[in-house]
Amino acid sequence: MKLQDITILGIQPIGLSLALSIKNSSIKTNNIVAYSENSDLVNSVKSLNLFDDVNKDLQKSLDGSSLVIIDSPLIEIPSLLESISNYPDIKTVLNLNGSQSKCMTWANDILDKSIGYIGIRPILKTEQPDITNISDLLLEDLDICLMPSTSTDKKSIENVIYIIEKIGANPYFLEVSEHDSYFTAMNKLSDVISAAYVNATTTKSSWIEMYKSAGIEFDQLSTNATKDPVTNEAECLTLSDPLIYWIEEMIASLNKFKDTLKSENDDLLNYFVHAWEQKAKWESGALSQNLDSPHMPSASEAMGNMILGGKLSKRLSGNDGPSKRKNWQYPK
Amino acid sequence: MKLQDITILGIQPIGLSLALSIKNSSIKTNNIVAYSENSDLVNSVKSLNLFDDVNKDLQKSLDGSSLVIIDSPLIEIPSLLESISNYPDIKTVLNLNGSQSKCMTWANDILDKSIGYIGIRPILKTEQPDITNISDLLLEDLDICLMPSTSTDKKSIENVIYIIEKIGANPYFLEVSEHDSYFTAMNKLSDVISAAYVNATTTKSSWIEMYKSAGIEFDQLSTNATKDPVTNEAECLTLSDPLIYWIEEMIASLNKFKDTLKSENDDLLNYFVHAWEQKAKWESGALSQNLDSPHMPSASEAMGNMILGGKLSKRLSGNDGPSKRKNWQYPK
Repeated sequence: MKLQDITILGIQPIGLSLALSIKNSSIKTNNIVAYSENSDLVNSVKSLNLFDDVNKDLQKSLDGSSLVIIDSPLIEIPSLLESISNYPDIKTVLNLNGSQSKCMTWANDILDKSIGYIGIRPILKTEQPDITNISDLLLEDLDICLMPSTSTDKKSIENVIYIIEKIGANPYFLEVSEHDSYFTAMNKLSDVISAAYVNATTTKSSWIEMYKSAGIEFDQLSTNATKDPVTNEAECLTLSDPLIYWIEEMIASLNKFKDTLKSENDDLLNYFVHAWEQKAKWESGALSQNLDSPHMPSASEAMGNMILGGKLSKRLSGNDGPSKRKNWQYPK
Repeated sequence: MKLQDITILGIQPIGLSLALSIKNSSIKTNNIVAYSENSDLVNSVKSLNLFDDVNKDLQKSLDGSSLVIIDSPLIEIPSLLESISNYPDIKTVLNLNGSQSKCMTWANDILDKSIGYIGIRPILKTEQPDITNISDLLLEDLDICLMPSTSTDKKSIENVIYIIEKIGANPYFLEVSEHDSYFTAMNKLSDVISAAYVNATTTKSSWIEMYKSAGIEFDQLSTNATKDPVTNEAECLTLSDPLIYWIEEMIASLNKFKDTLKSENDDLLNYFVHAWEQKAKWESGALSQNLDSPHMPSASEAMGNMILGGKLSKRLSGNDGPSKRKNWQYPK
């Protein structure tokens, strides 16, 4: 398979890393072009000398392209889709934006049906690098979620699966509405919790004294409050239904905690043990097995502790033999 | 000033780092001894060769000591205070545990009034190192909160201030009840939010599909759910009053967010802008100025962006001149 030109719309770490992975894989490509209307971003990526062209001329960037990767803020996406429609050579559009349902609606309305549109989201396990430190290893071994529109042709989907496997990642498919609910719970909700935490603590009169007691824990939990408010607002508005659902679940969980705190039994301990075990279960990879079937530890699970390294391994090790408890269960 | 022997009860990073800072400062000391009943911890700290003795014999560890630093889990503290009472040479006890009110009550009940008891908490700005990577630089330049009991003599307090200044940190004083409220909001609440988040998301039937969409954001927000549930339970019980207050504030803040999400005006944007600005204000150090007085930027504030480095500096920079907006205000 040989791809024609690839264009990345928007200069952001994931889109650039994806393009770099393709460039450095065994896939044959023509030019890889990155576009942004921001001159500073264009200049700093240009100086990396990683792509064939980096520029702020949208028409020039799209001309001759067959695959377009969108990695842009939500508000820019309708006009980008309009522009894409003017280039008949474009076969496939991949969109990395988090508000997939909204973008899918726009794609269905705006794009010609001959263009295969696929929402795409890599499930990152590490912090996003800044754009001057992008790496073709960022997406290696990651799960990458794909959401094709109903009109997307089989060929486009096959090509994208081919590309993802060639860069060493694992494709899986979700419905956009499922994606938006999961993305909200696993990602967007943490931005809301972070902002809610800052607004809860800094608006009290005690803040004028309390700020001095704020250290790394405050800093960490408030990290996502530093994301751009305008982007946060746009994403929350397009994810408002799942967001309301998950915020209500979060409030219910906090209320349950309050009740256990007042109880005189083991409920409070069990609350923390449950969270401890669920986190350990996720971390150890035990969830990818069928939990209803009789438990036969896989090689990867048996090696889990060693592979996952020090911190988890220490937490998960106990005095019981492995036959007595599963490795994610809290030793008590 | 010359200190006699110093004993650290409990082998944990902060207590050991504090002792190491004292050892490597210009303060003259006799032996510095670290105690734990855990043989593994004793052996791994012994092999660092940083202290005069590391052992699991409590009596031997306390014998001849004049300053004791407690850095132990809450449940062990009453019995440690009992033991300390048997050593008339001990002049001062510093306690690093987070549940200061509870510990203060125990200290008042158990310790002889001739022993100066002071709760102490350094406000860490970085992750705690593990015990094999402790550093005499960990506490440098940090604020260290001090909470003496009412019966603590002036001499003990002066000595502790002297020590803290000699290791390059800044002492400040709080009432224990204030400390517990602030500590709960700035520290303990993040453990509860983390566990509540894991319990909210992993108990739904969707989790069996959703876990695959969990990446770094889930990992980060659930980090504190990995803390030992037994310790978490004990700390929450001793901090239950401030905890209930702050959980209710957090719920109110989430409810307010839900309302702004449904509003048709700028409330949602303003919610994020408020959080963004409060975080920036804290990060830039603007809170330590008197905000009611006419604003004259201090040298440190003017240098703030440069000192704080890339990320914040980029966020706080805009096209407006510094005279038009304060450096923590969101540029809109």
